[in-house]
Amino acid sequence: MIVLFTDYGLHGPYTGQLKAMLLREAPGVPVIDLLADAPAYDPRRSAYLLAAYYGAFPAASVFLCIIDPGVGSARDACVLRADARWFVAPDNGLLAIVSRRSPHQEWWRVTWQPPALSATFHGRDLFAPVAAMIARGQPVPGEVLARQPETGAQWPDDLPEIIYIDRFGNAMTGLRACTLPPGTRLEIAGKTVVRARTFADVAPGEAFWYENANGLVEIAVNRGRADASLGLACGAPVSIARV
Amino acid sequence: MIVLFTDYGLHGPYTGQLKAMLLREAPGVPVIDLLADAPAYDPRRSAYLLAAYYGAFPAASVFLCIIDPGVGSARDACVLRADARWFVAPDNGLLAIVSRRSPHQEWWRVTWQPPALSATFHGRDLFAPVAAMIARGQPVPGEVLARQPETGAQWPDDLPEIIYIDRFGNAMTGLRACTLPPGTRLEIAGKTVVRARTFADVAPGEAFWYENANGLVEIAVNRGRADASLGLACGAPVSIARV
Amino acid sequence: MIVLFTDYGLHGPYTGQLKAMLLREAPGVPVIDLLADAPAYDPRRSAYLLAAYYGAFPAASVFLCIIDPGVGSARDACVLRADARWFVAPDNGLLAIVSRRSPHQEWWRVTWQPPALSATFHGRDLFAPVAAMIARGQPVPGEVLARQPETGAQWPDDLPEIIYIDRFGNAMTGLRACTLPPGTRLEIAGKTVVRARTFADVAPGEAFWYENANGLVEIAVNRGRADASLGLACGAPVSIARV
Repeated sequence: MIVLFTDYGLHGPYTGQLKAMLLREAPGVPVIDLLADAPAYDPRRSAYLLAAYYGAFPAASVFLCIIDPGVGSARDACVLRADARWFVAPDNGLLAIVSRRSPHQEWWRVTWQPPALSATFHGRDLFAPVAAMIARGQPVPGEVLARQPETGAQWPDDLPEIIYIDRFGNAMTGLRACTLPPGTRLEIAGKTVVRARTFADVAPGEAFWYENANGLVEIAVNRGRADASLGLACGAPVSIARV
Repeated sequence: MIVLFTDYGLHGPYTGQLKAMLLREAPGVPVIDLLADAPAYDPRRSAYLLAAYYGAFPAASVFLCIIDPGVGSARDACVLRADARWFVAPDNGLLAIVSRRSPHQEWWRVTWQPPALSATFHGRDLFAPVAAMIARGQPVPGEVLARQPETGAQWPDDLPEIIYIDRFGNAMTGLRACTLPPGTRLEIAGKTVVRARTFADVAPGEAFWYENANGLVEIAVNRGRADASLGLACGAPVSIARV
Repeated sequence: MIVLFTDYGLHGPYTGQLKAMLLREAPGVPVIDLLADAPAYDPRRSAYLLAAYYGAFPAASVFLCIIDPGVGSARDACVLRADARWFVAPDNGLLAIVSRRSPHQEWWRVTWQPPALSATFHGRDLFAPVAAMIARGQPVPGEVLARQPETGAQWPDDLPEIIYIDRFGNAMTGLRACTLPPGTRLEIAGKTVVRARTFADVAPGEAFWYENANGLVEIAVNRGRADASLGLACGAPVSIARV
């Protein structure tokens, strides 16, 4: 299985070209869209999303991860093997959190070059063919790295801010719920929210936080939009409320 | 074929996880997105959409229907067999209109429990595996119900309001066109609109109603947006204009 | 491979019904979404997009192209074979630019009629089955045309205006970059922008134009939105700046 994690969107012409390339280079391998609206140009916030969500996909999955504001510059392409999955991405920190949370990891720098490389669509021209090679079981077309790339090494283990707002207006943070003591109350946008287990546990219109189905702290409003009610946007800081 | 009818959206992380689960549990079964932006948190309006659209899919299709504001509460999961198709959904009325329009129907309450059940993503953890079992030809993992669930039983046969606005700004109602006499004029948002057969039958910029390709009464403006021109939103009431 | 090029969107009920039809009529043939948000009701601008993007797909691909404001009127359905690909579309100029740029071309007028034809969804009822027949290797169900349809014949070879804005706010024009001399500066919305090779070649926040990965002139802002910064919308004219 090849899993797409990008900021390309689905409607425009990017994801379709990616899929056509994968179909040509790895025919018969299923392709699943995990996230097509990762924070645009933002490998840092995307890194925490990827680390939270990859675990829902089976071992041996190949994640094709493209949030690539430096496309066309000298940044490398890299491959990571961690937690029994493969990850292909630009070397901009996008894989830093997946890597940090995995006890064993192997890194490669991609050295393969496609016959034709556009200046701005390395997803199609470079990353997709590399993901297809790995999905077909071929060796990684690159050189083993002795240690992990440095970009992202200084990022925190958990990111106390909003990193993604879903179509319901629920606001995910880069915090894992398992790192917070029971009963933790959070401060967000000047308000304090308590923890609940699920939407139906609070009154309609009430804001709360909960551990979402992939382990992240998420701010929500039962049958309402947390982003609109609380004035949230990506980047808004979250902190633990003092008792 | 498994057909997805949800309010999950396609871009975010929900539909992809659903598809990964279906791929694992029912490999080789095609999965089609019918609607990913059904009215959020709104099983009632969604019920009329589902009843209008399922018929475009072949017999034996399994519809995985998830509009589930009560996720995590005590509501049941149910399975319906009606009109030669299968429907898997939360017991919140989402299947009430499909059921009512089908002369023969069988209902089950799902009793199977997944090994791990998140509090907020039963689509992935519970409904998708059940749909996969049915698509594989296994027996429904639940108990037969003697009569249909009560939620939605009091809803009208046709819903005289806007239930969905598409990307062109066309506004679908919950009314079947076949229930209206020829020449019916409709009142919507203080305006009266006449019936036309198709867009090209009225002048550019003119509002009209027509029977859409799935049998619903739909309000449209030729080469324009009915939602913006007429000030329409989901829930706006529609009535038959007095002559 | 069947490639979808439409203004149907992915979330609503249209693309899913198209895919269900293709699955029934051409089982096993992969279907790829190239563009689901082509300029709505606008075959002219869409024609330049299609001509720029089809080349990323392999020979023998069948393009199912539906931007069809005249649906339900007397306009024909046509099939084009050009540059080793197949194109199925309404006869409204949508294929005019693909055709003009191809040295060899064959045209058919579709004469096949489906058993049931809705007034407003010929994509599902007519165009999709025809695309499926061609993808299965059957003869085109129509009559050969001696010469190409006239709609679009008077459109320019390149269209000097914005024809598509992607989710990053980058604004594509209908101009092929290869038609412009090196060093060309462009005027757009009262501003002059210089050419760059890629995003990373200009400062963050700076506007520029570049040859996008499919050969079109595209206006962008490094790590910003060109549409918002420059006040661009589809239809905005672009011209070559005098030195």
